[in-house]
Amino acid sequence: MNEAIQPILLAGQWQPSLGTTGHFRAADPTTGEAIGPVFPFSGAADVEAAVTAASAVAAELAAAPAERIAAFLDAYADALDADADTLVALAAAETALAAPTRLRGNELPRTSGQLRQAAQAVRSYGWTQPTIDTAAGLRAHLAPLGKPVLVFGPNNFPFAFNAIAGSDFASAMAARNPVIAKAHPLHPATSQRMAQLAHTALLASGLPAAAVQLLYQFDNAIGLRLAGDRRLGAIGFTGSRAGGLALKAAADAVGTPFYAELSSVNPVFMLPGALAERGPALAQEFFASCTLGSGQFCTNPGVVIVPRSVEGDAFVAATTTHFTSAAPMVLFSQGGVDHVAAGVAALQAAGASVLAGGAVGQGAGFRYAPTLLQVDAMDFIARPQALQAEAFGPVSLLVRVEDQEAMVAVAAAFEGNLTGTLYRATDGSDDAAWQAIAPVLRARVGRLINSKMPTGVAVSAAQNHGGPFPSTGHPGFTAVGMPGSIHRFAALHSYDGIPDALLPVELRDANPGGVQRSVDGTWTTADIGGAA
Amino acid sequence: MNEAIQPILLAGQWQPSLGTTGHFRAADPTTGEAIGPVFPFSGAADVEAAVTAASAVAAELAAAPAERIAAFLDAYADALDADADTLVALAAAETALAAPTRLRGNELPRTSGQLRQAAQAVRSYGWTQPTIDTAAGLRAHLAPLGKPVLVFGPNNFPFAFNAIAGSDFASAMAARNPVIAKAHPLHPATSQRMAQLAHTALLASGLPAAAVQLLYQFDNAIGLRLAGDRRLGAIGFTGSRAGGLALKAAADAVGTPFYAELSSVNPVFMLPGALAERGPALAQEFFASCTLGSGQFCTNPGVVIVPRSVEGDAFVAATTTHFTSAAPMVLFSQGGVDHVAAGVAALQAAGASVLAGGAVGQGAGFRYAPTLLQVDAMDFIARPQALQAEAFGPVSLLVRVEDQEAMVAVAAAFEGNLTGTLYRATDGSDDAAWQAIAPVLRARVGRLINSKMPTGVAVSAAQNHGGPFPSTGHPGFTAVGMPGSIHRFAALHSYDGIPDALLPVELRDANPGGVQRSVDGTWTTADIGGAA
Repeated sequence: MNEAIQPILLAGQWQPSLGTTGHFRAADPTTGEAIGPVFPFSGAADVEAAVTAASAVAAELAAAPAERIAAFLDAYADALDADADTLVALAAAETALAAPTRLRGNELPRTSGQLRQAAQAVRSYGWTQPTIDTAAGLRAHLAPLGKPVLVFGPNNFPFAFNAIAGSDFASAMAARNPVIAKAHPLHPATSQRMAQLAHTALLASGLPAAAVQLLYQFDNAIGLRLAGDRRLGAIGFTGSRAGGLALKAAADAVGTPFYAELSSVNPVFMLPGALAERGPALAQEFFASCTLGSGQFCTNPGVVIVPRSVEGDAFVAATTTHFTSAAPMVLFSQGGVDHVAAGVAALQAAGASVLAGGAVGQGAGFRYAPTLLQVDAMDFIARPQALQAEAFGPVSLLVRVEDQEAMVAVAAAFEGNLTGTLYRATDGSDDAAWQAIAPVLRARVGRLINSKMPTGVAVSAAQNHGGPFPSTGHPGFTAVGMPGSIHRFAALHSYDGIPDALLPVELRDANPGGVQRSVDGTWTTADIGGAA
Repeated sequence: MNEAIQPILLAGQWQPSLGTTGHFRAADPTTGEAIGPVFPFSGAADVEAAVTAASAVAAELAAAPAERIAAFLDAYADALDADADTLVALAAAETALAAPTRLRGNELPRTSGQLRQAAQAVRSYGWTQPTIDTAAGLRAHLAPLGKPVLVFGPNNFPFAFNAIAGSDFASAMAARNPVIAKAHPLHPATSQRMAQLAHTALLASGLPAAAVQLLYQFDNAIGLRLAGDRRLGAIGFTGSRAGGLALKAAADAVGTPFYAELSSVNPVFMLPGALAERGPALAQEFFASCTLGSGQFCTNPGVVIVPRSVEGDAFVAATTTHFTSAAPMVLFSQGGVDHVAAGVAALQAAGASVLAGGAVGQGAGFRYAPTLLQVDAMDFIARPQALQAEAFGPVSLLVRVEDQEAMVAVAAAFEGNLTGTLYRATDGSDDAAWQAIAPVLRARVGRLINSKMPTGVAVSAAQNHGGPFPSTGHPGFTAVGMPGSIHRFAALHSYDGIPDALLPVELRDANPGGVQRSVDGTWTTADIGGAA
């Protein structure tokens, strides 16, 4: 290993780590072979320097004109699109995700589109929710935190949730907060390339150069100390529940908002009428969703509730055939394979039986067979914790229920999830069942879905990629969708009796930009009356 | 003590505690004598029964029509106003707050007005922020948590922040969550009377009887266990930092949002021009604000920054005279007196010198002298933690600064506060100083105030009674002001592809109530287009 260790993006420039505690390389998931350059584990000096540099520019960034932020976000988006060939090649090599359909066709445009939506939210001031009470002399809006935001990216979206390019990054920057990005170590070269593009766009924007920094990896003790640093304004985390909860505890102890996306099994209820109407199609739809991206989705349909009936049995049989017929799928890492294997074993130990798969794949690289398990509703209700643990792979558990009452009881046994789905018959014959089950499920999920698999997550103002604990750390916020996702990285600021000229631009009497503002209880784009 | 122990409001009815761990009475703060009936310390059985009963009605309450909630809030407000004579007499006896000016003239109308503003937010659906993306088929709003909200009331507002009547109560009920109210033990008879009125209004409303419950007191271990109960949806806490942080840790561990209002010294900067223009008036204004309600305000001006100049010296001299001339003031409790005395001693130990007061008051009851201290800016910057500890009484610390640069340095030494104030000259001569200091202060406070003392807190949509940690637990939310304060007790719910008839009423195509909704990026009261 004589190869040079790659630099990190620290304090406004690419420079060697100030003191590594180790180094690592990516692996080709299809072969298990190490690929690409050598990246550093950052030690305490890197972390300290990053927080210091970000803190030093936080006020300047908070005071930056909206147009400068928006122009940066747009320029970065353009640079990502222009670099698609390189980015897709890097990400495909590091993740084994499908290059044409997933990476180029879907995830990269989603990522650049998300940055452009953030730019639009910045220009429109839509995320600031300006609120004016003329009688009381009070004006309020959402504003920058004035402190750095630390972002942890996950393994499963090398672009759209990358700490240096994804929703948390776009949201934190849109709110004019410096970002310290902690890339996921399973796709370091992809992250490096994106950070290079971000850095170039930043230098051209006139924003402070230390507004965006990138670290590749650090050990747990460093991470916990960083999460507990009082100089941080907020933390965005997407990843495993165990790691996330440890970091959350460190952040909680110093009062730092910690926005986590931790785990979710995304229950799907197959109502009887839907199964009678289109059972075979639903079996195909479910299999496709569960195995998309080798099942490595936060919104993977991990638990499916199926009636014990002729149609339910047929659905299970058809689904089992799909899962059995499929070859083992490539996962991101050996750790991922081990985690899935342990998860399947735990489900079996809790009473589930394997209908298909259930084994590590043969051959090179990191592979696991698409796996279908089944358990009775009574068992699920008796051991809800063990039977709703996320496996994070092409794995799903069927829960067989006798009747509608049992469906309601199963719904009530779920803890917080990102999504919940009910498949209904198109003729309305399932609507009574919907009325019984949906309210119970509704309280436990962030997004309630009608007759569609949960894996698609549109970037929309009406999206909620969030949900009650433990799917996330706060039920009131979404991680996806502008401008809502920006609200996580904002502070509420009220101005009391402040003269017009000393107010932020979107709170002044004159509203030349036509910002939508709530004035004395009504949303309007008008100026405040002439008597000011 | 043969007197009967008062019942608690548990599971829909007034009933004896299921097992007390002790009992207590209120005291007349002017004499120290015990007054009023005997109230129970609730044990584990009461707490368990309260959570169970609230959880059992959470779904019914979440599904209740908006009008029913609004009618309850209005009826309760009317009942409070109609009962003013009794409520004011009870609160005056238990708190020694001024009956005509404070309790009857200000706090009770504010409390009933706040409930009516909550009712208005419920009827208008303004708090739900309906957001519709017609192209994506997604519709989102803020919705009930589907779980009980636990509210801890403080000692200092027997009406407006009472756990059974104040902003947290009104907000949690407006969001259709059951409330478990933990009254403050220094005004139990006031809380009991309010709870009786709430219960009567609730029974008349058709809402579930267990939607509102009242416990008077429990010991710390019970409180910590309750705060860590996974069945709770959120917690609202107003009180001391030490108690609040302990409860917050318990809530954090199970992912329950904890909205705390913990402590604040509310820095006030006296800019040179303002002092030159109207120094004596400012001295009077400051003294009046610092001693209002015996200084027992979250927004008490606890630290005032004053230039070392002829005008600054004159301001200090005038202020010292005001403080010296005033008689010792009645505090709520002996514990309060002890806390203030300890706080003053701690400030002295950290280098502050006493200019006026600094002693426990002679005579009966709980009294402390209005107290003014002074410290140099260099000392403040050297020991910022010790010198910005909240005393919670008629106590303020003057920080003497050489120049504008020192003012900026002092501003930068503050941790999170509810408010920050700059007094400016009316001729604009302080505006350069404002531009230097305000951005630094802005990032550290929830409400930035121009030339006005912080003690007045209007109930307004543009209010922020909140601020960065440790003044509160989250910088994005306000505890006062409708509809913002309701957002704390809400979950974000997205609906994906749900047929119109199965949507919540404010998300349907037709909008007969004229709800303000964000539709495809624009706020409007219109229906969704005819093609639905």
